[in-house]
Amino acid sequence: MRKEGRLTRWIGWTVVAALLLLSFIIGWFAKPTCPNTPNDTASGKYLREFLDEMRPEQIREHLRKFTRLPHLAGTEQNLKYAEQIMKEWKEYGLDSVEMVPYDVLLSYPNKTQPNYISIIDQLGSEVFNTSLAEPVPEGYEDVSNIVPPYSAFSPKGQPEGDLVYVNYGRTEDFFQLERDMRVNATGRIVIVRYGKIFRGNKVKNAMLAGAKGIIMFSDPADYWAAGVQPYPDGWNLPGGGAQRGNVLNLNGAGDPLTPGYPAKEYTYRLSLEDGVGLPKIPVHPIGFHDAINLLKNMGGPIPPNNWKGALNISYRIGPGFTDDFKSQKLRMNIHSNNQITRIYNVIGRIRGALEPDRYVILGGHRDAWVFGGIDPMSGAAVVHETVRSAGRLISKGWRPRRTLIFASWDAEEFGLQGSTEWAEDNAKLLQERAVAYINADSAIEGMYTLRVDCTPSLHTLVYDLTKQIASPEEGEEGVSLYESWHKRDNWTDNRDAPRISKLGSGSDFEAYFIRLGIAAGRARYTKNKKTERYSSYPVYHSVYETFEVVEKFYDPSFKRLRAVAQVRGGLIFQLADSQLLPLDVNQYADALGKYAQSIAQLGHRHPEEMNTYRVSFDSLFSAVENFTVAASDFHERLQTLNKADPLQLRIVNDQLMYLERAFIDPLGLPGRPFY
Amino acid sequence: MRKEGRLTRWIGWTVVAALLLLSFIIGWFAKPTCPNTPNDTASGKYLREFLDEMRPEQIREHLRKFTRLPHLAGTEQNLKYAEQIMKEWKEYGLDSVEMVPYDVLLSYPNKTQPNYISIIDQLGSEVFNTSLAEPVPEGYEDVSNIVPPYSAFSPKGQPEGDLVYVNYGRTEDFFQLERDMRVNATGRIVIVRYGKIFRGNKVKNAMLAGAKGIIMFSDPADYWAAGVQPYPDGWNLPGGGAQRGNVLNLNGAGDPLTPGYPAKEYTYRLSLEDGVGLPKIPVHPIGFHDAINLLKNMGGPIPPNNWKGALNISYRIGPGFTDDFKSQKLRMNIHSNNQITRIYNVIGRIRGALEPDRYVILGGHRDAWVFGGIDPMSGAAVVHETVRSAGRLISKGWRPRRTLIFASWDAEEFGLQGSTEWAEDNAKLLQERAVAYINADSAIEGMYTLRVDCTPSLHTLVYDLTKQIASPEEGEEGVSLYESWHKRDNWTDNRDAPRISKLGSGSDFEAYFIRLGIAAGRARYTKNKKTERYSSYPVYHSVYETFEVVEKFYDPSFKRLRAVAQVRGGLIFQLADSQLLPLDVNQYADALGKYAQSIAQLGHRHPEEMNTYRVSFDSLFSAVENFTVAASDFHERLQTLNKADPLQLRIVNDQLMYLERAFIDPLGLPGRPFY
Repeated sequence: MRKEGRLTRWIGWTVVAALLLLSFIIGWFAKPTCPNTPNDTASGKYLREFLDEMRPEQIREHLRKFTRLPHLAGTEQNLKYAEQIMKEWKEYGLDSVEMVPYDVLLSYPNKTQPNYISIIDQLGSEVFNTSLAEPVPEGYEDVSNIVPPYSAFSPKGQPEGDLVYVNYGRTEDFFQLERDMRVNATGRIVIVRYGKIFRGNKVKNAMLAGAKGIIMFSDPADYWAAGVQPYPDGWNLPGGGAQRGNVLNLNGAGDPLTPGYPAKEYTYRLSLEDGVGLPKIPVHPIGFHDAINLLKNMGGPIPPNNWKGALNISYRIGPGFTDDFKSQKLRMNIHSNNQITRIYNVIGRIRGALEPDRYVILGGHRDAWVFGGIDPMSGAAVVHETVRSAGRLISKGWRPRRTLIFASWDAEEFGLQGSTEWAEDNAKLLQERAVAYINADSAIEGMYTLRVDCTPSLHTLVYDLTKQIASPEEGEEGVSLYESWHKRDNWTDNRDAPRISKLGSGSDFEAYFIRLGIAAGRARYTKNKKTERYSSYPVYHSVYETFEVVEKFYDPSFKRLRAVAQVRGGLIFQLADSQLLPLDVNQYADALGKYAQSIAQLGHRHPEEMNTYRVSFDSLFSAVENFTVAASDFHERLQTLNKADPLQLRIVNDQLMYLERAFIDPLGLPGRPFY
Repeated sequence: MRKEGRLTRWIGWTVVAALLLLSFIIGWFAKPTCPNTPNDTASGKYLREFLDEMRPEQIREHLRKFTRLPHLAGTEQNLKYAEQIMKEWKEYGLDSVEMVPYDVLLSYPNKTQPNYISIIDQLGSEVFNTSLAEPVPEGYEDVSNIVPPYSAFSPKGQPEGDLVYVNYGRTEDFFQLERDMRVNATGRIVIVRYGKIFRGNKVKNAMLAGAKGIIMFSDPADYWAAGVQPYPDGWNLPGGGAQRGNVLNLNGAGDPLTPGYPAKEYTYRLSLEDGVGLPKIPVHPIGFHDAINLLKNMGGPIPPNNWKGALNISYRIGPGFTDDFKSQKLRMNIHSNNQITRIYNVIGRIRGALEPDRYVILGGHRDAWVFGGIDPMSGAAVVHETVRSAGRLISKGWRPRRTLIFASWDAEEFGLQGSTEWAEDNAKLLQERAVAYINADSAIEGMYTLRVDCTPSLHTLVYDLTKQIASPEEGEEGVSLYESWHKRDNWTDNRDAPRISKLGSGSDFEAYFIRLGIAAGRARYTKNKKTERYSSYPVYHSVYETFEVVEKFYDPSFKRLRAVAQVRGGLIFQLADSQLLPLDVNQYADALGKYAQSIAQLGHRHPEEMNTYRVSFDSLFSAVENFTVAASDFHERLQTLNKADPLQLRIVNDQLMYLERAFIDPLGLPGRPFY
């Protein structure tokens, strides 16, 4: 009895003690923790769903839908597509979608007075004229509003003169022309081939050389892949095709009449004479069929081999024609108009759950020279699919930690105007709140492998992410995109990882990355740089950039575009939803060290000049060293960060977010205030 | 037994249940709440202690200590004071104190070739020379290194010519001179009286008018209070005293050779010819004894009454002297040197407990033209006392929510150089992290009441705070500083509150407020503007700015300086320690509405021009209206803010912090990139 009683009591107390402990535990867990301790595991699950939701057939459909009609910036059709995108993004489930207009300077050919180039005889009669339009591809014969090839923002004019051939129109080409070949471009019309540098710079160089006009042509050496048929039987540029494009020198100013400010109704506008980057001499682009006719009878010296393209002519320098055609001259007939035109960005948002005041942006343009089969709609289709997939997640209860912004920019082809005006309109907010900008121009320019250009702090995220995405290549089932990419494009002998390049310029990320200092990146499918040496892709900016060129040649399964969608989408997902921002400061330090070394190496090639001007890289290397130490210390502190403390987390994330801003000088570069 | 047993059991179970509940409660409370839920009540108690700790006799002692010797920027003595301040701030208990040097362009008289002005006869002989120094005040006879009156950054030169009197040297004075009086200043030496506008602008105007030199004098009309004796028997400027000062037109550039960048050893420096704002004609300041001698024999027309000062002369315009002295001319002899000189800021910090990455700055300069009894040491003594009091709180276990930064700037007198270079050095961090900047130049310029100039968002805080501070005036025991101030300087007929003015320019807040857009304010004791019409205070920038001028006349009890210390100190305390930033967006909206109205009223005075140039204020009023609505909405949202949610609080505080940044245009004003 005693024993039993003791045992009973003992058991009783044990039970009571256990109950007390249980109560304590219940009390502990009943109390809510801090409101903002989300869960990276849940986020990882949603990422998988987000990526898996993206479908090749959906991307195909988006692309088909938005490439039926030409939709040049400032035209009714491009507004209609904007309205359609707005409508569909709303249906997909974004919190808000708005249309944001600006009134910017655009340029169009005169509909009643076409642009062309003539060879004229002594009497001024036209003995040859370049074509007024490209032959329309099959299936699009009834389409109206195809703008003929032109150089946007060319001034009007009908200059006459002798022709001078200046290779690619680079600074070194004009130097060689004048110094070695002793040919002067002043007062003449220069003809250059497309490629190597931005066409606006060719025009600037021609102006500086005193030319009175400039013609640009697509040489098969630069726009023709061996063994490939011209469109529609292959993806090469037909001889009648020509590359449209703007010929501005904006240096990031956006609308030429409102540099630094959004082009709103209340904004002060410069006069046309004072507009930023507008060329002062007529400019016109032609295809290689026309180019043969202009070039074949040229006289003057025969150039070195690296000035010769792939046409069956001798590529003489000029000036003017050979003896037989001495009396013939060239006349450009340019009648384009600059006009202030309304453009429309579409801006959609998913409001962040915990940090609505932090923005992650996925933006790409919608305006196209004609159909935009590749540029930009292969990118726009990818954005569309990303929005659709994000909408599906929203419907399942997901909401990102930070705000996601999706943008369909207008008038990129006229100098990144839509994206730049919006950046100018929202500069303060973006500077204070934008975590990253991912660009979504053309998603494919080749059939070989992935290409990523981004700020160094994103390298690690790109690698991590591509390991979670499948290779789109046939026969690579079970192979990750990372592996597929790595195999095809390893960095260098020193680094065993897929190559990632620096961000350059020339697409809508400029205002975000170069002006505002927001971490940025872009990803697309690309060609094999080692074997395919042509610039961009052959049908670039021609009427032959159709849905079919993608469907038949570049990505019949639409898996490559899906992979690009997964990379772009995965990047914004991780940037918006990770507790700790996935930006790697050590990678930044590493890249800076390499840049510094390559600058110093360039310097060491010119020891005399370095000595004369007393150039030293000591301060540069010292700064890089300081940065490297600070980055490494910071990275170490991250290891012990208490992620459950929302204020600690925010402070560290702010440091990560503002890292990229540190590299922006508000005074800009000399003469280039927006770079 | 049964009943008893039941009772026992019942009691037993009740006890167990109570224990379970207790355990639950213990569990609940044992679990830490969110780490960052501080307590505004505790903060209020510390504020009271912080203000009460400030002592008049301590401020007296600080002022006495730092005004014994001249301590011009760039001199050994000013470095010694910097070292002493650094040492004492450390002793007071700041977390860190550092010395931050820059190498900037300063200007000094040549020690072996003094600057002066002569009247010369036909032969070039000097018939009168201005004094080479001010009579040294009693008690300072043995002090060396008193720099004589000079205009810093005047170029060297010995121009000769006829004198022209141009009143205050304002734009309108030069207009009147040339249009109404038909006198041309070109090729002549102009003489103007100090006052109304910054002396650097007088020099610019003289240059634009083609003058070959400019002399500035202190007229008793502008530097003499009625019924007051000259120093040492009163606080008026003696006739032998003159106002030193720089004559730059920097427009916020800081060091003239490194605009936009910190003047470090690795910084690219402009050549002297390209330096920002350096005057191109010799400049020199004189007192009114010397001025009488230059002016009394002048010829030419008699000017209107508002051109006449209080000297017993007729203030003729010139050019040159009357008939009797026709052959006499003026010669300036200026031999000052510009030289790159090392200056030293002292920067002290108290690291914030919860938001170390948010900065509240109290900064004022240390360099003085001579002793700096008022300018700047009355302000520096106040900063010193604030640091001492903050140190006492730290020793009691207090630590502010945000980081406090204390700054002793150098070379303010040479164009706000120390503060501007540090702002340039830390521009990114400050832009991202600075909550507010409170300026601490001269703490007293009169004996009447408080003067506050600040950004509108600080109005409410200033009012709340001054209600917690006692009036320093005799006979006002139990009266708050707010009441005392209100009684003496009510805003307007429309607004029943003490007047607060807009922040202008001319002291170290410029780079922080005007360039970086950080909320800023200043407070000092001032004169009665209605009855005392002289500019600044009579002994300003003369050798007579001694400790004694404060002790004998301006603040014998040192209670006025204590009150200023409590205002400046209270501001930074509240800004650094309040959970929610004490910035009032509605006040900002209100002020913007008033500014817009006053601009529109100015416009309506010129209806024809408004019409001709099609000027409309519609966009302005629309913007103000939008801002007002947004501010009011935001203010309302604040009422329901969950302050226990650290992330919510941080997001709202970020919005408040960045409000002031919204008014900064990174491109600056036309021709003034830093404004």
